[in-house]
Amino acid sequence: MPSVAIIGASGYTGAELLRLLAAHPHFDVVSASGDSQAGTPIAELYPSLAAAYAGRRFDQLDVDAAAVADVVFLGLPHGASQGIVPQLRAAGAKRIVDLAADFRLKDPALYPRWYHDEHTAPELLGEFVYGLPEIFREELSGASMVATPGCYPTAGTLSLLPAARAGLIELDGVIVDAASGVSGAGRPPKAHTTFCTVDEDFTAYGLLDHRHTPEIEQSLTSVGGAEAQVLFTPHLAPMNRGMLATCYARPTAAGADLTSAGALQVQADAYADERFVVVSERSPSTKATLGSNTAHLSARVDERTGWVVALAAIDNLTKGASGQALQCANLALGLDEGLGLSQIGTYP
Amino acid sequence: MPSVAIIGASGYTGAELLRLLAAHPHFDVVSASGDSQAGTPIAELYPSLAAAYAGRRFDQLDVDAAAVADVVFLGLPHGASQGIVPQLRAAGAKRIVDLAADFRLKDPALYPRWYHDEHTAPELLGEFVYGLPEIFREELSGASMVATPGCYPTAGTLSLLPAARAGLIELDGVIVDAASGVSGAGRPPKAHTTFCTVDEDFTAYGLLDHRHTPEIEQSLTSVGGAEAQVLFTPHLAPMNRGMLATCYARPTAAGADLTSAGALQVQADAYADERFVVVSERSPSTKATLGSNTAHLSARVDERTGWVVALAAIDNLTKGASGQALQCANLALGLDEGLGLSQIGTYP
Amino acid sequence: MPSVAIIGASGYTGAELLRLLAAHPHFDVVSASGDSQAGTPIAELYPSLAAAYAGRRFDQLDVDAAAVADVVFLGLPHGASQGIVPQLRAAGAKRIVDLAADFRLKDPALYPRWYHDEHTAPELLGEFVYGLPEIFREELSGASMVATPGCYPTAGTLSLLPAARAGLIELDGVIVDAASGVSGAGRPPKAHTTFCTVDEDFTAYGLLDHRHTPEIEQSLTSVGGAEAQVLFTPHLAPMNRGMLATCYARPTAAGADLTSAGALQVQADAYADERFVVVSERSPSTKATLGSNTAHLSARVDERTGWVVALAAIDNLTKGASGQALQCANLALGLDEGLGLSQIGTYP
Amino acid sequence: MPSVAIIGASGYTGAELLRLLAAHPHFDVVSASGDSQAGTPIAELYPSLAAAYAGRRFDQLDVDAAAVADVVFLGLPHGASQGIVPQLRAAGAKRIVDLAADFRLKDPALYPRWYHDEHTAPELLGEFVYGLPEIFREELSGASMVATPGCYPTAGTLSLLPAARAGLIELDGVIVDAASGVSGAGRPPKAHTTFCTVDEDFTAYGLLDHRHTPEIEQSLTSVGGAEAQVLFTPHLAPMNRGMLATCYARPTAAGADLTSAGALQVQADAYADERFVVVSERSPSTKATLGSNTAHLSARVDERTGWVVALAAIDNLTKGASGQALQCANLALGLDEGLGLSQIGTYP
Repeated sequence: MPSVAIIGASGYTGAELLRLLAAHPHFDVVSASGDSQAGTPIAELYPSLAAAYAGRRFDQLDVDAAAVADVVFLGLPHGASQGIVPQLRAAGAKRIVDLAADFRLKDPALYPRWYHDEHTAPELLGEFVYGLPEIFREELSGASMVATPGCYPTAGTLSLLPAARAGLIELDGVIVDAASGVSGAGRPPKAHTTFCTVDEDFTAYGLLDHRHTPEIEQSLTSVGGAEAQVLFTPHLAPMNRGMLATCYARPTAAGADLTSAGALQVQADAYADERFVVVSERSPSTKATLGSNTAHLSARVDERTGWVVALAAIDNLTKGASGQALQCANLALGLDEGLGLSQIGTYP
Repeated sequence: MPSVAIIGASGYTGAELLRLLAAHPHFDVVSASGDSQAGTPIAELYPSLAAAYAGRRFDQLDVDAAAVADVVFLGLPHGASQGIVPQLRAAGAKRIVDLAADFRLKDPALYPRWYHDEHTAPELLGEFVYGLPEIFREELSGASMVATPGCYPTAGTLSLLPAARAGLIELDGVIVDAASGVSGAGRPPKAHTTFCTVDEDFTAYGLLDHRHTPEIEQSLTSVGGAEAQVLFTPHLAPMNRGMLATCYARPTAAGADLTSAGALQVQADAYADERFVVVSERSPSTKATLGSNTAHLSARVDERTGWVVALAAIDNLTKGASGQALQCANLALGLDEGLGLSQIGTYP
Repeated sequence: MPSVAIIGASGYTGAELLRLLAAHPHFDVVSASGDSQAGTPIAELYPSLAAAYAGRRFDQLDVDAAAVADVVFLGLPHGASQGIVPQLRAAGAKRIVDLAADFRLKDPALYPRWYHDEHTAPELLGEFVYGLPEIFREELSGASMVATPGCYPTAGTLSLLPAARAGLIELDGVIVDAASGVSGAGRPPKAHTTFCTVDEDFTAYGLLDHRHTPEIEQSLTSVGGAEAQVLFTPHLAPMNRGMLATCYARPTAAGADLTSAGALQVQADAYADERFVVVSERSPSTKATLGSNTAHLSARVDERTGWVVALAAIDNLTKGASGQALQCANLALGLDEGLGLSQIGTYP
Repeated sequence: MPSVAIIGASGYTGAELLRLLAAHPHFDVVSASGDSQAGTPIAELYPSLAAAYAGRRFDQLDVDAAAVADVVFLGLPHGASQGIVPQLRAAGAKRIVDLAADFRLKDPALYPRWYHDEHTAPELLGEFVYGLPEIFREELSGASMVATPGCYPTAGTLSLLPAARAGLIELDGVIVDAASGVSGAGRPPKAHTTFCTVDEDFTAYGLLDHRHTPEIEQSLTSVGGAEAQVLFTPHLAPMNRGMLATCYARPTAAGADLTSAGALQVQADAYADERFVVVSERSPSTKATLGSNTAHLSARVDERTGWVVALAAIDNLTKGASGQALQCANLALGLDEGLGLSQIGTYP
C-alpha cells in the first residue's frame, strides 16, 4: 500500500486531496502537514472530513518523514515549493507531485516576468513533467517529479488543444476568457473573498497580467508547433467551485473550412480514449463537474465572423488541481490512472 | 450482481440514486424509467452523469420489467406509489424501496388529515418498514418493503431521538424549526423555485401544516413511549442542498439536571456505532454534508430558560433521501450497509 | 440644512448610512471618519458610492469636529461607543445616534453577563432612548441620545410586540429562531465569513448566548408587563442581506382563543399607522425588504399544539440598523420620520 | 403630473418600472396591465411593492385607456410590441417607450435573420429613436417613440463606444464576452432558470446566435464609421442582477500607440458629462450597480498581444432596461433626465 505525505494539507487543494485519498483503494495518508494549522484537528477545519479522518490532526511539517512516503504532494502557496523540493530530494524523496506553479514553466525567465521573483532552483525545472495527462501521459508514467497545471491552464488548454495540435487555429491572437469559483483564491480570509464582497458579483481581475497566461502559452506552443500568444482574462463568479473557459481563436488556412460540427469532431477524436473528458454539443456547465475529475468540452465555428470558439468546464479543485494531481500520482506509480477518481459530479 | 430498477429516475432523488449507484460495487441498474422524460438521454438532463451513463436514455415505465429486478426504487411524487406498489407486488417484485411518503405513516387516518386524500392501499401500510436504520436496522435487514423517511423527519428525528429514547425530554410541545436547500422542492420548474425568487431570500413555508409533521411525531412516539406532538416550521434557504433542523424541547423530570455536556454525551452514546452519524460540540453545518450520507449532530441545554436544543445537519438528497434509500437497500439485501455510500462531503 | 457626522463610516452600517443619506433631502454629510480607512477614497472601498461621493475620502476621526454636527452617528464595533460618547458630550455634541449595543440595555449588570465586560459609562444608560420608533416614538421626538436596536431584536420584537402588549402570550418560554444574511457580521474578513465558508451553508451560531438575547427580553418586558425570558437561536444564511425571525410563544389564558386570523388582526391593528411595517397573511420573505426600511410581518396560531407563531422579515442593514438610525435621527430633529427612507425593496 | 401606463407590468422589467416610478417625483402610474396576472394584487406577486402599491392589482390591458397616458411603457416579450404599437398609435398614444427588441433594429432584414420572423410593422422602424442617451440624447429629447436597448448592447456599446467613435479600434473582429444575472431571463419559471439549475453554475448560452448581436453591431457602426462585426458570447452567472461585458478589439493604425492610460482617458473624456457613467481604473464590478442606473466602465491595452480590452458593468434591469427606459421617458417629456433615478447601488 503506497504511502502518501501531503505538505500544505490545510488549504483547499490539500483538503481536496484528503477527500479524494479517503476514497482511494490503495493509498495510505501517513502525514498531512498543515503549516500554521499544525495540531488543529482536521475535523475542526473541515467538518466534512470528520468521519474519514476521525481523531487526526494536521501534522507539523517534517521533511525527512515526508520524504519516506511513496508520494509527496505539495499544496503550498507559490514560491514555497522552490525551497522545499531541493530539501525533499536531498532527503531521498521518491516521487513529488507539486500542485503549485513553481515548476510548471520550462523557461526560468518567465518567473521574474510573471511571478516577480527569480526562480531559486531553475536547474530543476527541466526535471519536472507537466502534469496534464491528456498531453504528457507517457512522460508521467513512472515520473518522479510532476508539476500539475493551474486550473485555468487546464481548462484553456484542454479546450483548444485538439484544434491547435491539428494546426487548425492560429496560435497568436488567442483569447482565453474564463470564470472561476471563489475556492480558487484559497482558504485564508481576504478582503476580496468575503461572502459580502463576492456574492451577487461578477468581475474581471488580473487584467492583462494573470500568472496563468504563460502556462497556457507554453502548453499551446508545445502541441501547436508555433509560438502561442494568449490574452487571458479571468473573472470571479459567485460560486464555490467550477471554472469555465471560453476561448477564441482565428482559423489557419488549414482551418478555413472548419465548421462547428468539424470542430466538435476534432475535439471528440482527440479525447476518444480519455475517461476524464466529455465532448458534447451541449454548452459546458461548471455545475456538471462538481467534485468530479471530468472536463466537459464543446466547440463552435462562427461562419459569419470567422472565430473558432472552444469551451471547457472543470471543477477547479478536482480536475483543476487535486484530482489531476492524484491522476498524475497514479500514473507515476504505475497504477490505474482513475483510482480514487470515480466520483461523479454531485448535482444539483 | 443484484439488479436495480428505478421508477421515477428523472427527478432529483432519482438522479441522486443514479449518481450513488454508479459508485456501488455490486448493483446493476437495469432500468431507469423517467416518466415524461422517457427517451431523453440521461446526459441531456444530467450532464454530470454523462460519463457514467454514456448513451443511456430514460426508459419508459414497464412494471413487469421493473418487478424482475432485485430491488425497485420508487422516486415518484406523493400519491403515485400507492397505485404502483400493488402492481409491482402483483408482478412479483422482490424488494421495494419507496422514497415517497405513501407508506411512511402507520395510521391511515393521517393521510386524509395531512395529505388531503384517502390512502388507496391502507392494507399495505403495516408491511412497510420505516427506513431509518438508526432506529429500525433490525427490521430493515432482509426487509422486502421499505418506506424511507422524508428529509425533515430524518434530520429532526436523528437529533431528538437519543434524548427522547432516554426519557429526558417532554414529547409534547416540541418545536422543529428547520431550513432546507431548494432541491427538496424537486426538479420541475415552479414559480417559487426559480433562481430569482429564491436567491438571496429566506422564508418560512408550510406554516403549521407541513406534511412531514406527523412523520416526526410518529418516530418520536415510537421511541419515546409517549404521544409526541410537534410544531414543525420549514424554511427555504438559498442553497442547492443541505438541511438543518434546530429542535427545541422541554426536559422531563428525569432530564431536569441535563447539561449541554450531558445532552451531547447522550447523543454520542446513542450513535457510537453508527457510521453515518457524527456527534460533536460544533454547531452542525449543512455544508459539511454535501453529497455525503452523513448526519452531523449536536445538542445544548440552556440552564437559563430550561430549553433542550438538538441540531442536525444532513444533505437532504443523500441521507435525507437517496443515500438513505441505498443504505436501506443494502440492509434489505444483506449487504454491507455502507456500500456505495463512502463519498465524503465535497467542500467547499 | 442639518449637518451629519458619521463615526465608523467605513463599515457596512456606515456605508449604508452614506447610501441612505445621499438620498435624504436635508442632510449634509460633513464628515465620515473611517478608522483604519482614513484617507482611502470612499469609491475605492465602496464603488457603489462612486458617483454620490466622488472625490471624497474617509476622514480621520476628529471628535471636536464631529461634535459640531447636528447629528453624530456612531457605527462602531461593540465597546467603542462607551469611550467616545462621553468625549462627544464633553465636546458639546447635540445629538448622538449610536448603532452599537453600548447603550441599548438599561440594566448595567447585563453587560458583564452578556458582553463579558463592565460598562464604563453606566451613568449614561438611562439617558439613551431605545431607537425603536414603533414603541418609543414619543421619547424619540427631540431626543438627544438614541441607541438603535440590534437587527435581531428589531425583527423579534416587532413580530411579537402586538401580542405581548395585548397580554395574549406568555413572556417566558419564548423562542426566537432567526436567520441573517452575512452582512450582519461586518466588513472585515473573518474565517467564518469567507464566501467559501458561507456559500451553500446554513448553520446555527451563538447557541444559547447570543448578545441580542437580553435586548429582546428588555423590549418584550417593557411592553408586556411581565419579565420576558427568551431563548434566541441565530442562524447564518447564505445571502448578503436580510433577516427572518420565526418566534414561538405560548398563549396566556387571555390568548387561549386566539386564532391565526386573530393574531394577524392584532398585528395589523398595532401597526395600522406605521409606514414601515407591512402585515399580511403572506409568509414574510427577506427578499421583499432588500435595501428598504420596511418590516414584513405575519402570525399564526396552531390550534393543534397551541403555539403562537410570529414572523418578521427585515433588511438587517436598513430597518435592522442604518435605516432605523436615520428614522430615529429624523424624529430626533423633528423632521418627517420617513425622509431619505422612501426606497422600495430592490427585486429580484 | 404626467400620467404613465405600463403594458406588461407583471414581468421583471415592469416591476422594476413600478419600483422606480414610485420614487419619481412627477409621474402618476394610471395603469399597470399584467397580462395573465390581471386581477392579481401587485403585492402578491411583488411583496416588495406592498407598501408603495397597497391595494392595487394588475390591470387588464386596455389599449384605449393606456393611449391616454402621457407615456406608455411596453415591457412585453419579443414580438408583442409589433402588434400593439400600431394599435396604440391609432388610439392616439402620445409617447411610447418600448423595452423590447421590436423596434431597435433599423434594418428590417435583421429580424428574420436573428429573430426568425418577418417584422410586421417595418414601416415604423425608422420612427423609433434608439434609447441610449449617451449616443442619442438629442434625438430622445421630445421623442414620441423610443426603443430602449437590450441589456447586453447597453453594456457592450457603452464600453466600446469611446474608442470606436475615436477611430482607435477596428470594428470587425470585435469580441463581446459577457455575463448576466438570471433576472435577464424574465419572471416565468423555465427549466434553465430554476434555482437548482443555475445556482453554483456558470455556463455560456446562445453561442454564435444571440439576438443582441446585431444590436451591438448597429450601435458600433453608427458611431464608428465602418461596418462593425461582433462575435457575442453571453454567459449566465448565478446572481439575480448584474451584467458585465468584457470586450476585445484590435487597435486601428490610429490606435497603434494607445496605452491603458490612454484608453481610460478616452472613456473618461467621452463620458465626462454623463451622470450615469463612472469611468475608473478599477475593474468594474456588477455588485457596485445593484438597483442603480449607473454604468461602471474601465479599459486596458495589452502591449504584449495588442488587444484593447473594454469593460462595463451595469444592473441589467436598471441601466440595462427599466432605468434607461425611465431616463428616456424623462428626456422625451423634457424633464430632468435623472428624475426617479437617484438611487445609489445597494451594497453589499
